Order: sequence, then structure tokens, then C-alpha cells
Amino acid sequence: MHVVATIIAKPESIDLVESELKKFIAPTLKEEGCIAYDLHRDNNNPATFVFYEEWSSKDLLDKHLQSPHLTAGLAAMAGHLESVEVLELTKY
Amino acid sequence: MHVVATIIAKPESIDLVESELKKFIAPTLKEEGCIAYDLHRDNNNPATFVFYEEWSSKDLLDKHLQSPHLTAGLAAMAGHLESVEVLELTKY
Repeated sequence: MHVVATIIAKPESIDLVESELKKFIAPTLKEEGCIAYDLHRDNNNPATFVFYEEWSSKDLLDKHLQSPHLTAGLAAMAGHLESVEVLELTKY
Repeated sequence: MHVVATIIAKPESIDLVESELKKFIAPTLKEEGCIAYDLHRDNNNPATFVFYEEWSSKDLLDKHLQSPHLTAGLAAMAGHLESVEVLELTKY
């Protein structure tokens, strides 16, 4: 399965959010079931970050969402985000 | 560069939109500069479709957006879409 997660930082928190999201990449790529985990930034809005992810199963994605590094990062970003949208997708 | 395009069909137009979007894939993959062009559907909302794309340049992406098959498909979907959001992205 695939995921597109769109994270919008508050204007005053862009650098903090960018730094926290970048910390997710290395440990996540080592997680069981992680096939792809690519972070992007919106060329037209520096506050908008997009992950494109591929996971071998929904269960392993859910395990990822409970992982220590994700939990710690989300805690560090608490109050610094405008929105987080996670779309779970099936590729044609 | 990368693109995430999120297309939401009107509830009564899901099949039409799905069919039109699927028609984009083959001709687009043949276009100059097209590195990746993957269509997905939201597992939790059958009206929501997401393209994840990679292009070798912004110019060639713009050329794609003016291509005959995209123009024809967008015309065929006119009035059948709730929203279209195209994010132009830079990958870390």
C-alpha cells in the first residue's frame, strides 16, 4: 500500500517542523515493511511538506505510526502544525 | 521535480473520473521528461484519486499539462470534479 501524508507547519515553526520530519527518514527506512519513504517540500509553499510512502502491509504502517521515533517527533511538533492529512492509498 | 496531484470526483461521477484518469497513464509515461506517473485511489474515500509524479524538469511538466490527452481528459471531466490540487515538490 501507499501513503501520501501532507504536513503544514505554522509559519513561525517551519524550521522546527522541517528538522523533525527529516529525523523520521533514517529510522523509518529501517523499519520492517518500509519500501519507500520520501520527504518533499512544496515548491510554492515552504510550510508544506509531503511524504510519499510505500508499505508492505497496513499492519506494518500502523506499527510505524506507533514507533518511538514517530511518537517523539510528533510530540516535539505539537502546537507547531497547521494540519496533518494522511491518505492511505492503493496504486493502480 | 515531483508532483502530488489530488483529484476528488463528485459522488455521482466517480466511475467517469476514474476512467478518464486511467487513460492519462499510458500516453503520459511516453512523454519526454516523465520519470514516474503513478495513479492511486484513497482507501477510505473512493472519490479521491492521487497521482504521484516525477519529471525531469518544470518545463516538461508544463508541456505535459498542455498535452492533447490531458486537455481532452480534463474537458471530459469538466463539471464532474469536486476539486483538483496540484503540489509541485522538491524531494529531500
